[in-house]
Amino acid sequence: MEDAELFERLKNVALDSAWSALARRGYPNQFCEGLRVFRPDLKIAVRATTVRCLPVRPDLQQQIREQGPPLNAQSVEEADAGDILVIDAGGETGGGFLGDIIAARLVARGGVGIVADGAIRDLEEIRRMPLGLYLKGAHAAGSGRRIMPVERNVTVRCGNVTVVPGDVLYGDCEGVLVIPAALAVEVLAEAEATDHKELFLRAKLEAGESIYGIYPPSPETLREYENYKNAQRN
Amino acid sequence: MEDAELFERLKNVALDSAWSALARRGYPNQFCEGLRVFRPDLKIAVRATTVRCLPVRPDLQQQIREQGPPLNAQSVEEADAGDILVIDAGGETGGGFLGDIIAARLVARGGVGIVADGAIRDLEEIRRMPLGLYLKGAHAAGSGRRIMPVERNVTVRCGNVTVVPGDVLYGDCEGVLVIPAALAVEVLAEAEATDHKELFLRAKLEAGESIYGIYPPSPETLREYENYKNAQRN
Amino acid sequence: MEDAELFERLKNVALDSAWSALARRGYPNQFCEGLRVFRPDLKIAVRATTVRCLPVRPDLQQQIREQGPPLNAQSVEEADAGDILVIDAGGETGGGFLGDIIAARLVARGGVGIVADGAIRDLEEIRRMPLGLYLKGAHAAGSGRRIMPVERNVTVRCGNVTVVPGDVLYGDCEGVLVIPAALAVEVLAEAEATDHKELFLRAKLEAGESIYGIYPPSPETLREYENYKNAQRN
Amino acid sequence: MEDAELFERLKNVALDSAWSALARRGYPNQFCEGLRVFRPDLKIAVRATTVRCLPVRPDLQQQIREQGPPLNAQSVEEADAGDILVIDAGGETGGGFLGDIIAARLVARGGVGIVADGAIRDLEEIRRMPLGLYLKGAHAAGSGRRIMPVERNVTVRCGNVTVVPGDVLYGDCEGVLVIPAALAVEVLAEAEATDHKELFLRAKLEAGESIYGIYPPSPETLREYENYKNAQRN
Amino acid sequence: MEDAELFERLKNVALDSAWSALARRGYPNQFCEGLRVFRPDLKIAVRATTVRCLPVRPDLQQQIREQGPPLNAQSVEEADAGDILVIDAGGETGGGFLGDIIAARLVARGGVGIVADGAIRDLEEIRRMPLGLYLKGAHAAGSGRRIMPVERNVTVRCGNVTVVPGDVLYGDCEGVLVIPAALAVEVLAEAEATDHKELFLRAKLEAGESIYGIYPPSPETLREYENYKNAQRN
Amino acid sequence: MEDAELFERLKNVALDSAWSALARRGYPNQFCEGLRVFRPDLKIAVRATTVRCLPVRPDLQQQIREQGPPLNAQSVEEADAGDILVIDAGGETGGGFLGDIIAARLVARGGVGIVADGAIRDLEEIRRMPLGLYLKGAHAAGSGRRIMPVERNVTVRCGNVTVVPGDVLYGDCEGVLVIPAALAVEVLAEAEATDHKELFLRAKLEAGESIYGIYPPSPETLREYENYKNAQRN
Repeated sequence: MEDAELFERLKNVALDSAWSALARRGYPNQFCEGLRVFRPDLKIAVRATTVRCLPVRPDLQQQIREQGPPLNAQSVEEADAGDILVIDAGGETGGGFLGDIIAARLVARGGVGIVADGAIRDLEEIRRMPLGLYLKGAHAAGSGRRIMPVERNVTVRCGNVTVVPGDVLYGDCEGVLVIPAALAVEVLAEAEATDHKELFLRAKLEAGESIYGIYPPSPETLREYENYKNAQRN
Repeated sequence: MEDAELFERLKNVALDSAWSALARRGYPNQFCEGLRVFRPDLKIAVRATTVRCLPVRPDLQQQIREQGPPLNAQSVEEADAGDILVIDAGGETGGGFLGDIIAARLVARGGVGIVADGAIRDLEEIRRMPLGLYLKGAHAAGSGRRIMPVERNVTVRCGNVTVVPGDVLYGDCEGVLVIPAALAVEVLAEAEATDHKELFLRAKLEAGESIYGIYPPSPETLREYENYKNAQRN
Repeated sequence: MEDAELFERLKNVALDSAWSALARRGYPNQFCEGLRVFRPDLKIAVRATTVRCLPVRPDLQQQIREQGPPLNAQSVEEADAGDILVIDAGGETGGGFLGDIIAARLVARGGVGIVADGAIRDLEEIRRMPLGLYLKGAHAAGSGRRIMPVERNVTVRCGNVTVVPGDVLYGDCEGVLVIPAALAVEVLAEAEATDHKELFLRAKLEAGESIYGIYPPSPETLREYENYKNAQRN
Repeated sequence: MEDAELFERLKNVALDSAWSALARRGYPNQFCEGLRVFRPDLKIAVRATTVRCLPVRPDLQQQIREQGPPLNAQSVEEADAGDILVIDAGGETGGGFLGDIIAARLVARGGVGIVADGAIRDLEEIRRMPLGLYLKGAHAAGSGRRIMPVERNVTVRCGNVTVVPGDVLYGDCEGVLVIPAALAVEVLAEAEATDHKELFLRAKLEAGESIYGIYPPSPETLREYENYKNAQRN
Repeated sequence: MEDAELFERLKNVALDSAWSALARRGYPNQFCEGLRVFRPDLKIAVRATTVRCLPVRPDLQQQIREQGPPLNAQSVEEADAGDILVIDAGGETGGGFLGDIIAARLVARGGVGIVADGAIRDLEEIRRMPLGLYLKGAHAAGSGRRIMPVERNVTVRCGNVTVVPGDVLYGDCEGVLVIPAALAVEVLAEAEATDHKELFLRAKLEAGESIYGIYPPSPETLREYENYKNAQRN
Repeated sequence: MEDAELFERLKNVALDSAWSALARRGYPNQFCEGLRVFRPDLKIAVRATTVRCLPVRPDLQQQIREQGPPLNAQSVEEADAGDILVIDAGGETGGGFLGDIIAARLVARGGVGIVADGAIRDLEEIRRMPLGLYLKGAHAAGSGRRIMPVERNVTVRCGNVTVVPGDVLYGDCEGVLVIPAALAVEVLAEAEATDHKELFLRAKLEAGESIYGIYPPSPETLREYENYKNAQRN
C-alpha cells in the first residue's frame, strides 16, 4: 500500500482500535506515555525519523560538531520529505531541541509534526505552524543548556516506547501510537474491521438499547452484525 | 429539596464557596486533587456512582467475570440515570477504564460525566460527548492492561478524596468537589449566602475602592452589606 | 526607557531571543519551570511585586495578623499600579493564595497577571479576567489550608527562578521569563537584533532553501544579512 | 503442606525464582513496588491479613467508630496468629497507621511484619522489634492526620499489587512478593527446582568457566545438569 | 528550664509523643517530610540556626559577596555554639550547601547536626563526624552549581515545615520534629506523661493481654493506670 | 599512568575534589544523580563498559537474539577484565537487568561493580558479592518484563550523565563520578593538590581556629600553606 493511502485510512480509524490490533500481536507498549498534546485539533499519520540526545558533554559535543552540520539541522534536512521528528531527550525539559527556524524548514520540507520526550522552544511561533506536537514541555532555552543531539536515525526511546526509524506514527488528541512498519497494513485492516463493528454496536446504544448483550457483544448480537455486514457488501 | 433544584442551584454558586462551607463543617479534604479538567467549558452537579479498580490479577479477574456482566458495563447500566461515574484506579494511567462504546451508553442513560483517578480511552470521541471529564489522563489501551474493576458502588478513593456512592459532586473548570449527601442542602445555602455577600464586596472593588476594609470586610462594611441585603428582601 | 515603551517592545520580541540574551550575560536560569500557562492567548511584560508564603504555623500567623491587613490584600493594594504578583508558595498546590475578590482589586489597580509556584482559587471567575496566569494549579481551598503569606516585596523563588521585586517579567504561551531590571534594556536591544536576523533567515527557509549555510548561518549568509540590514537602514 | 513447612522452605528459595514461577503462570505483577525495606536483615514468609485505609472523612469515621474497636487494633487482635499486616494506605505517608503499642501486641500474637503502602510511626521503637518492615516511610503523626482504616480483611492494593487476605507473602532484602494461596505449593516446588539448577550453573561460573553455553544453558549443559541431578538422587 | 536539661529529657521521650502534644496545640505540621535520615544511630535535641538559599543569580550573588564572609561559613561561625544548621534549599539536590571543611568547623563549635531540604557534599567524610544528618541527598558539586545562600537566621521552609531560628529540633531515626521555642517545655512535659502511660499499657500487651480495653484504654484501664502512677509517686 | 596506579590514587582523593577539577574544565554534569548507593562500605575506581536498554519490543528483541549470545551475558564476558557495568535502563525499575548468575561471572572476571539507571534482581545474593552497587532499585522480575538490552559498548545516559565506554568511574558512599578518560590523570593530580591544601585548612579548624580567613583561605593563609607545602617537600 502506498504511504499516502495508508496514512489517510489510518487517520480514519480509532487510535484505540489500532492499539488493540498491536496488543493482540504482542505489542502492548507502543503508545507514548507522559507526553502532552499541544495541538489536539490535528491528526497525524506519518513515518518516523529519529534523533537521540544525551546530556551535554564537551568532548563529545566537539567530536560531533566536527562531523558535519548540527544534528538538529540535519534531522529536518536529511529526513524523507514529510517525516515526523521523534526526539529522544531522556525526559529532559530544561531546554528546547529546536526552535522556530528549524521548524520552519521542517514545514517547508513537508514535515507534519514533532514527538519529543523533552521540550522545544519558540512555542509561541511553532504552535501556529501545521505541526502535530507531542511533547513533554516547552522551554525558552536552546539545545545546549542541558542536552545535545548525538545520533540521527537510530532506534530510540520516546515516551517509554521503542521507536525504529520508518515506524508509522499515528496521533490524535489522545496521544501518539508507534506502529512497527511491517505491521502497519495488517493493523490498519484490523482496526477498520473493529471500527466497523463498534460503530454498529454504538449505534444500538445511541438508540437507547441496554448495554448488556451489546458490549461485550452476545453471540446473537454478533450474528446480527454479520448479517448487517453481509448486507452492506451486497 | 429535589435533586434537580439542588443541582441547578449548586451550579450557580462559586465552587470555592461550597468548599469553604464544607471546611467549616470539618471536611477540608473534599476537593479532588491531581486530576486534569478535560472539558473546562462544562459545569456539572450530580450524584456519584462508584467503581473500585485494582491491579490486574488473573484469579480475581476470573472470579469477577463469573459473577455477571463486566463491571464497567454494569457501572453505566445499573447506576441511577444521570449519575456521574467515579472511578478509583489507584492513580494508574496505563490503560483506560472505558472507551467510546460504554461512554455512549452512559450518555444515553443521562450520565453527565466521568471522574477518574486514572485514564479513559477513545478521548478523540469522548471529548465530543456532553460529559464533564476529570481525569488523570487518557490512554489508547483498554482496561485489562494494568487494572480491572472489582467492585461497584462502594466507598472509594479518588483524587485523594473519599467518595461515598450518592455523594453530590460539583465540578467546574477548576476541578471537582465531593459533598457528602447529608450536607448538600446546608452547604448550598451557606455558599449562596457567601456568594451574595462576596458579589457585593467585589462590586465595590470593581468600582475602584481600596481593598482595605472591604476584604476582609470591616464591621462597617458588614453593616452596609446587611442594609443592602435587607433592602433587597423588601 | 519608559516602562510603557520597554514593555511594548518586549512583547514584540521572541521570548526565546530574550532568554538567549540573558544566558549570554551569565543568567541561564531565568525561565520559570514547572508552571502551567492558563491563558496562552495573553502576552505580558510587566514589573514584579512579590509575596513569600510558608507552611501554616499558628504562632507566626498570629504575629503577622497583628502587623496589619492580610498580606494577600496588601500585595494587590500596595504594589505599584500595573505590577504582576509573583507568589513563592514553595510548590504547594493544596490551597489558593487568592480568589476572585482580591483578583478583582488587582485588575482594578491595573495588574496584568499572577505567577505562582502554587495555586489560586476561583479559577472559573479569574480565568475570565484580563490576567496572564502562570500557575502550578488551582484549588478550591483558600490560603490558610496549607500556606500563609509571611513577607511582601522580598526576593523569592518561583518556578526555580530567583525573583527580585522590580524585575521585568515577560510571558507568552510558552511561559514566563524573569529579566533583572538592570539588564532589561540591553536584553531587549539584543533580542530585537536577534529577531531581525532570524526573520531574515527564516524567510529564506520558508522560500524553500536548504537549511545548510542558513542555520547556523555561514559567513556568506551573514554577509548577505549585513547587506540587507544596511539596505533597510537607508 | 503445613504452613510451617511451606514458610520454612520458601525462605530457602531465591525470591526471584518464586517470581519467575508466578510470572510463568500469568502473574507478572506480584512484587510490591515503591516500598522501602527497613529491615534488610530479616526474611519473612507468612500469610496476609489486610486493612484498607482511605482519606479522613468525619461522617465515615464516626460510622466506623460506632461499629467496634478501632480497626488498627482489630487488625492485630483478630488476625490469625502470625499473620503479616498488609495496609493499603493509598500511598499516603503523612501519618502512621500504627505505633509501638499496637506493634507490641502484633509481636505478642506472633506477627512477623508490616507491609504498608504508607507509613508507620514510632520507628525508633519498632525497628528494634522482630518485624519485617516494608513501608513507604515513617512519620511522627498518628493515623487520623490524613487517613483512617475503613475495612479489614478485604482485597486491597499495596505497592501496586492486588493482595487477597490469606495470600502468602515472601520478603527478603529486595522486597516482598505476593503469592496467591492456591499457587503457593507449586510455586515453591518450581522455585526449588530452579534454584537447584541455577546453583549448579553458578558453581561452574565461580570455577572460572565462560558464561557462554552456561547461561542461558546450552543443551549440553542441560544434559550435564540432568546427570548431576540424577546422580544426586541415587 | 536550661537547654541542657531540656535537650536531655527530650531525647528520652518518644518523638511521636512530642508530635502529638504539638498537634493538640494546633501544630500538626511540624515533622519534616521528604528528608532521609543518614545517621539513624544518632538522636539529637538542639536549637535551630537557619540559612535560606535561592537559585543562583549572578547580580544577587555579587551583592551578597560584598557584604561579608560567605554565608555558609558565617552560618557555622556565628550561630550559638551547639546549634543545628537548618538549610532551606528549596528541595534542590544538584549541589551541596557545604562540605567537610565547613562541617569540621561546625563540629569544633559544638554543632550537632544538619537538616537540609537539599544536599551536602563530602558525605564520605561527614558521615563519620558526630552530626545528625537529615537531608534530601548528597552531591559531589559545591554550592554555586544550582543554589546560593542569601540570608542567615530568618524564618525558612524545610521539609515542608516552617522553621524559626531558635526553634527546638528533636530528631531520631524516624526524622526530625520542629518545636516552637515557646512550647518546648510544655510539649516535653506532656510527652513525658504520655510515655509514662504508654509504657504501662505496652507492658500489659507484652505480658500477653488482649489489646481491647488497653489501647485505646478503657475507663477501667485508665483507673488502673492512675493507681499505678500514684503508687509510684509514693 | 597505569590503570592500577590511577585507580589506587583516585580512591585516595575526595570524590568532591575530583568533581571540582572536572567542573573547572567545563564538565559540571558528571556526577550520577538519582541512584541509590547499595554498598556504601565500598569504594571503586574503574573503567566503564556500557549496555543500552530500551523498552521491550518483540521485533527488535527477535533480531537481537539472532545476532549472538544475550547482551547481558556478553556484557560481562566480553568486557575487559575488571570493568564496571554501566547500564542505561532509561530509569525503568520494573525488572532487573541481571541476577546472581551473571553477577557471579562478573565477579569471576574481576568486575568491581554495577551502575544502573534501573534495577537488578537477586539483591539478596548480589549484595554479598564484592561489587559496588549504584542503582535506582532492585526488582524480583528479570530483564524482559519491561526492558531489553539492545547495544553494548556505546555511549549511554546513566543517572543523567553521558557515559562513554572507557571512562573512568570513581564511586564512594556519596555516589559515582564519571571522568572522561582523557582527563583522568590531570583530574587526579588536581584533586590530590586540592586535598593536600584542604587537609591543611581542616586541621586548623579542628584545632579550634575561626573559619574566617581559613575557608575560603585569605592570602595570608595561602602563604602559610605554601610554606607548609614547601617544607614538606624538603
